[in-house]
Amino acid sequence: MGVNDDVSDIIEHHDEEEMEKKCARSQAASSVTPSDSRGEGHGAGTHSGTHSGTQSSHRLLAYSDALISIIATVMILPVAHTKVEDNEELRESVRLLLTTKIGVYLMTFMIVTMAWAAHIKLFQVIVRIDDCLALLNLACMMLITFLPYTFSLMAAFPENILGILLFCACVMVMGCIQCVIVLYAFSRPFLLNEQIQISENQTFYKHHILKVIMRVPLMCFIASIFSVIFFQLSYVLLAIVIFLPYISQSLKWCRNKAMGQVEETPDSMLFYTYLPNEPLSKERVEAFSDGVYAIVATLLILDICEDNVPDPSVVEKQFGGSLIAALSAYGPEYLAYFGSFATVGLLWFVHHSLFLHVTKTTRFMGLLNTFSLAFVGGLPLAYQLTHEFPPYSRNELEAIQISCVIIFFAGIFQLAIWVVALYNERETLHPYVRYGGSEHVFMLAKLALYPCVALGTFFLTCILSRFSAPIFHLMEITVPFAFLVLRLLVRVGMALLRLLFCPERPDPRSIIEVEDDEARVPFNALVT
Amino acid sequence: MGVNDDVSDIIEHHDEEEMEKKCARSQAASSVTPSDSRGEGHGAGTHSGTHSGTQSSHRLLAYSDALISIIATVMILPVAHTKVEDNEELRESVRLLLTTKIGVYLMTFMIVTMAWAAHIKLFQVIVRIDDCLALLNLACMMLITFLPYTFSLMAAFPENILGILLFCACVMVMGCIQCVIVLYAFSRPFLLNEQIQISENQTFYKHHILKVIMRVPLMCFIASIFSVIFFQLSYVLLAIVIFLPYISQSLKWCRNKAMGQVEETPDSMLFYTYLPNEPLSKERVEAFSDGVYAIVATLLILDICEDNVPDPSVVEKQFGGSLIAALSAYGPEYLAYFGSFATVGLLWFVHHSLFLHVTKTTRFMGLLNTFSLAFVGGLPLAYQLTHEFPPYSRNELEAIQISCVIIFFAGIFQLAIWVVALYNERETLHPYVRYGGSEHVFMLAKLALYPCVALGTFFLTCILSRFSAPIFHLMEITVPFAFLVLRLLVRVGMALLRLLFCPERPDPRSIIEVEDDEARVPFNALVT
Repeated sequence: MGVNDDVSDIIEHHDEEEMEKKCARSQAASSVTPSDSRGEGHGAGTHSGTHSGTQSSHRLLAYSDALISIIATVMILPVAHTKVEDNEELRESVRLLLTTKIGVYLMTFMIVTMAWAAHIKLFQVIVRIDDCLALLNLACMMLITFLPYTFSLMAAFPENILGILLFCACVMVMGCIQCVIVLYAFSRPFLLNEQIQISENQTFYKHHILKVIMRVPLMCFIASIFSVIFFQLSYVLLAIVIFLPYISQSLKWCRNKAMGQVEETPDSMLFYTYLPNEPLSKERVEAFSDGVYAIVATLLILDICEDNVPDPSVVEKQFGGSLIAALSAYGPEYLAYFGSFATVGLLWFVHHSLFLHVTKTTRFMGLLNTFSLAFVGGLPLAYQLTHEFPPYSRNELEAIQISCVIIFFAGIFQLAIWVVALYNERETLHPYVRYGGSEHVFMLAKLALYPCVALGTFFLTCILSRFSAPIFHLMEITVPFAFLVLRLLVRVGMALLRLLFCPERPDPRSIIEVEDDEARVPFNALVT
Repeated sequence: MGVNDDVSDIIEHHDEEEMEKKCARSQAASSVTPSDSRGEGHGAGTHSGTHSGTQSSHRLLAYSDALISIIATVMILPVAHTKVEDNEELRESVRLLLTTKIGVYLMTFMIVTMAWAAHIKLFQVIVRIDDCLALLNLACMMLITFLPYTFSLMAAFPENILGILLFCACVMVMGCIQCVIVLYAFSRPFLLNEQIQISENQTFYKHHILKVIMRVPLMCFIASIFSVIFFQLSYVLLAIVIFLPYISQSLKWCRNKAMGQVEETPDSMLFYTYLPNEPLSKERVEAFSDGVYAIVATLLILDICEDNVPDPSVVEKQFGGSLIAALSAYGPEYLAYFGSFATVGLLWFVHHSLFLHVTKTTRFMGLLNTFSLAFVGGLPLAYQLTHEFPPYSRNELEAIQISCVIIFFAGIFQLAIWVVALYNERETLHPYVRYGGSEHVFMLAKLALYPCVALGTFFLTCILSRFSAPIFHLMEITVPFAFLVLRLLVRVGMALLRLLFCPERPDPRSIIEVEDDEARVPFNALVT
């Protein structure tokens, strides 16, 4: 029972800590608009004068997240719509795809998520908006949605400077709008984060933020000038712009390792640092991920709705008026849709379970999340490929193996988020899923299920290449049920392990669970 | 000063009321998961035993909203991708579109939003989820995303029963899953709404909800049986299913008018009534609207990214290697994109401003919102049409007029939401925007701007048909700036009106605003 007491002590202590934090945060975020459910209570009494026109930024950010997540995944469409011919080898066409369209997709995803990260930073400083800021933000969004197009122009015409000029123009205008937003917000301090609002060196903050924001448009300005003289250099400059924070961070890390720890960033640099443990708004990471998962899950049905309704005259002529015969030709498309929807949905489910227990999201976790989402975006394409080739062909086998690889990487990056969170578990994770927490093993099982299954399927299809399609379909069907009974499986597995290795010591976890069940009874009895 | 005191009294009183309501609601929704920011404080002490596996349903609902909003708008794609030929009359092709594809789009939008409303009802009863419910909900979502396809099959082959059978099968399976969800949730009462959890007749609630849910699948079952015998009847049955709540409501309303008021619905029927003032979760109406606005705003850029990157060989041959010349052929597409993005963005902005001041959403307001969104979905198509025809042609004029009509209806339904909210303003609106509130006139101006401008443009193009395109473009450019200076315009207008009609009486509103400004100063002084 001693262990149990300790654990619940920790939990309670943590709960109290959290509660205090939440209170502090909700006071910091308190605004006096009717929509802000937390702020109303606190705010009504104290600053009822500032309401006029100020609003909670919550919905503006949700809308921005929705827009950006759509735009990040849009470049997968040209990849998915590339027709892969039956007679040529898949390997060849995949190589063709890899070099151009997939490259464009990945780079777009990267650039758009960088813009999104900058947007998060900006609106961690500005926590309330008014009409003017909302309109400026919409203008910014319009430019972000245009970025993928400039990027595909660059990919199609690498030697023409128009693409690079358009891209630079977009980034520069966006930088200017962001500066206007910052200047506007600092001229009305009640729009700002409480921390900056009460700090004495607001001007210092303003200059620091403006400096960080202007860095990127300035580099783009230089790049656009160089593009006239020597266009290869401007690509190098743009690449530096994109990876600048990572380069500077890794340089700093190397220097720290070589020369010993230098002093920490002072408190005044709390915002717009590029430290890997800089907090990212968890709410926005979730909203962005939801958007990407939703778009990816429906990508195939969009195509099906548009293309797979047969023409009545064709049905009459080719299939003798039998609609079922005509539709059965589309069978593989439906299978691909249901398969990809289920996989994307379950990956969302794992993501959801993970982020339920994450209490703080850092920049590095956000980066891993982006990688995971980039692979998720490729899933519909992979599923479509698996059903496009004749059964038992070499192409089919390769398409199935590509699907497994994509699922594996999407899952492994989710697992990596958890591993990174565990490194700093006191700050980033809820006690239930920390080492020794009651949900720790279950969460590990949930996160490891897809990578393990994908790896297993991959090797099975290598060995039993004749049965690759049945193996793959079996995997598709069993995984959802595996998730349903996972809690049971984990308990059985743990019990077996305990029996094998230490049969006499009672497991602290099972005691906690029994206690939980007991604790639940009085509550329910009280309720009914 | 008496008026002013009264107003602030009302405001304060309302704030207190709201605060109490909020507290009650947050206690009702209190869950013990780490993610639920409101519940943690209250929940930690009381039911710390129930945590195991239960989760706040917030993110699941956000993801469902994202999926459903994408699916609701997807059937606009076949409409948008219909090629309108230059030589034939637009009137003819529009008639062709109207009869089939637009009909399918509108019906899909309606049916999917009905499914979404049912989903809201269900998760207003079930406020916490666990893994099992999350997986069941995903299965439900998969079936909803398949509905548009069955519907387009029905439209393409009205005499073939396959479409209707597929549709009925989807709805029946969905009904069964929802029943399983309800039974599962009632077997674990801590998942339920606090109100049901503490009520004595849980079994009554369960049966009532199951009865309402099973009504639709049962009707579909009958329809699918009739489809074998006499398929026209099954369409009638399905139409009845869809409009059942509205039919029964209007019948009840007529009876009330004819025979006098019958007694009110008892308290026990709080959920799953179909009264027009039944509350809809405001959060979910916002999330769904955000999803639709985001998809619609990016529909054109999706096409542009995929189709409007010219082939290098074509540029070399036809345009002598000049990329600018090749891209200028796509000029109208870019214009259409920026125009539709700006219009959709500004309509979102108006929607956002309106819902900031709405405190409770009713079923009827949700219906009006759906109508507004259905028109918003048609906007990109209309904008694309305006730029597809040769200048000064009859087709161009008609395309511009159609755009104006769509904008007008999208805006007028937003205005209607406000008017409906004003009828019951004490319950549904924040004091600032009620009659006499400080923001009332400003909100009216915001909501009326787009309908007025669209109407004005429509009549101007009728009179000056030669200049229709310049008028339309001028409208596109001026409206964003009009929104920026709207507050100023409204103040000037009010001042003018006051001068004209009652020059001696000081306006109570201006006093409030001056007071506001005064009240703001000490707060800022206190802060800095």
